[in-house]
Amino acid sequence: MSVDKLPKPTRVALIGSGTIGLSFAALHLTQSADVEVAIYDTRPDLKEYIEETLPGYLATLSATITLPDLLSSRRLTLSPDLPTAVSTADIVQEQGPETPAFKQSLWPQVETHAPAHALFWSSTSGIPASIQALHMHDKSRLIVVHPYNPPHIMPLLELVPSPTTPPALIERTFAYWKALERAPVLLKRETTGFVANRLAYALLREAVHLVQEGVVGVDELDAIVENSMGPRWTVAGPFKSYHMGGGEGGLRAFFEKIGGTVQACWEEQGEVGFGKGEGWKERVFRETEEVYGPSVGLSVRERDEKTKAVLKARGEGLVPKKDR
Amino acid sequence: MSVDKLPKPTRVALIGSGTIGLSFAALHLTQSADVEVAIYDTRPDLKEYIEETLPGYLATLSATITLPDLLSSRRLTLSPDLPTAVSTADIVQEQGPETPAFKQSLWPQVETHAPAHALFWSSTSGIPASIQALHMHDKSRLIVVHPYNPPHIMPLLELVPSPTTPPALIERTFAYWKALERAPVLLKRETTGFVANRLAYALLREAVHLVQEGVVGVDELDAIVENSMGPRWTVAGPFKSYHMGGGEGGLRAFFEKIGGTVQACWEEQGEVGFGKGEGWKERVFRETEEVYGPSVGLSVRERDEKTKAVLKARGEGLVPKKDR
Repeated sequence: MSVDKLPKPTRVALIGSGTIGLSFAALHLTQSADVEVAIYDTRPDLKEYIEETLPGYLATLSATITLPDLLSSRRLTLSPDLPTAVSTADIVQEQGPETPAFKQSLWPQVETHAPAHALFWSSTSGIPASIQALHMHDKSRLIVVHPYNPPHIMPLLELVPSPTTPPALIERTFAYWKALERAPVLLKRETTGFVANRLAYALLREAVHLVQEGVVGVDELDAIVENSMGPRWTVAGPFKSYHMGGGEGGLRAFFEKIGGTVQACWEEQGEVGFGKGEGWKERVFRETEEVYGPSVGLSVRERDEKTKAVLKARGEGLVPKKDR
Repeated sequence: MSVDKLPKPTRVALIGSGTIGLSFAALHLTQSADVEVAIYDTRPDLKEYIEETLPGYLATLSATITLPDLLSSRRLTLSPDLPTAVSTADIVQEQGPETPAFKQSLWPQVETHAPAHALFWSSTSGIPASIQALHMHDKSRLIVVHPYNPPHIMPLLELVPSPTTPPALIERTFAYWKALERAPVLLKRETTGFVANRLAYALLREAVHLVQEGVVGVDELDAIVENSMGPRWTVAGPFKSYHMGGGEGGLRAFFEKIGGTVQACWEEQGEVGFGKGEGWKERVFRETEEVYGPSVGLSVRERDEKTKAVLKARGEGLVPKKDR
């Protein structure tokens, strides 16, 4: 952990103890000994509920960190009272109900009771910080930290600032997640559904289309993805993959070779402005070449070795179930 | 290997020795001791070229199978003469130039010289069997077996029959790939780009859009996919994932919860017929429930354990390069 950027210990107040709250609690408590967690939830059986649910999450990540130890050392505290939970927090992380009304009423209360230096993070999957912050005194303090579920397993965290978020706040948020060896990615601006889900839903739309057209069944479609893009994109994302696929000419050469098929598929998938013609290409080609250069820092041999290891770790499931 | 369905040894004639041909050669020769391979290519330096390139592919899959052994035992033969290469073949697998003219002129020659029982497979990424077979006597003999590159690493093979392909031919093709522990998936009909690439290009289109709109850079987009959908879809494809994500109510409950966001993203991604309104849902929900039932045969705990193993096998790369 970057102690120059974050206090030691770092105190995280979690608002809401549903599956995302529990998952984050386990992550914070097991990935750094310097983190303390306070869980706020109004449910009357909070202690019994946490005793029943949290150990399963902790056990996934650590063989030695146990709930009784966390509670007796007060690295973990539970509270039905918001001011108590946030009053000494360095980070307040919210995973409450997904309604603007709830979030808009919550944050001014948090702002009143939390220290002036505390970071405010929302785990929302769709309500931008600029909308949640409506009634806050300092609207620029709130940033979306959108996990890919469950966050104690999946590395991605999408950081989505509002137009007024100060760079220092983003930097401190980054520093925390990098210290926990997660994969924070900063979006440049708010967009419907953020990025990961937008990409997934674009593929899902085509998946629904192919099932509806009777080209494949849902289980066959899943088997296709599990045995192609899943492992490939675990090792190298789509731009990196196609940049490598183009050989020495990179992404540009890849599109020279198979651009016709890509275009034909896009046209069948419905028109959007950029999908027509060639206008979109130059920026994407240039950016890929600038960011990755000719090599992407991963040789084909390394890619293949990693892919083999990933498939071996995944284990069974190579052949669609009904054909076994 | 299902000896009732395939001869022993099974003789595979590979037409074309580019990277896909080499990859398939290594796969056939290392995954079953009962397979013999003949490589046909007109390049004058065929022997030197194979001696230079094939050992690297073989070494990826086997520590004991070497090119000198394969050549001296005649499990591998090389030929610049098509009739010689295919005359005793049980399977003829083509990965030549991607033009209809090449394929249409090749297959009648193969048909003339190959045994009557031989299976004819094309590795094409886009030219349907019904078009390739134009000049064949028996057009129903040809089937597309589309790999996801490189096939000696990636398990998927898309089997794309023409409207006249007999079921027995599909069955024998399936039997071969299952014997090699690959993941063959049968498409119900020919479609532009087949399925894996159509899905990948749908996501790529949205990726290009997000880069062009300045929401993320290409490397950030890759990092997002590598740390979310990549590992998730390695373990459970999109329908299976969302069916699990909906808890007891399955895919139906998932869409009740987040369908509004999905629809909002789809609308921004451009309209296609099925994407409007609710009409598409019933078939996809019903099929998912029929195929997977309530459990999908994978518990959340198993999914998470497999995902952890996959991420560990993948290793480094959690944090976008420029932030390390």
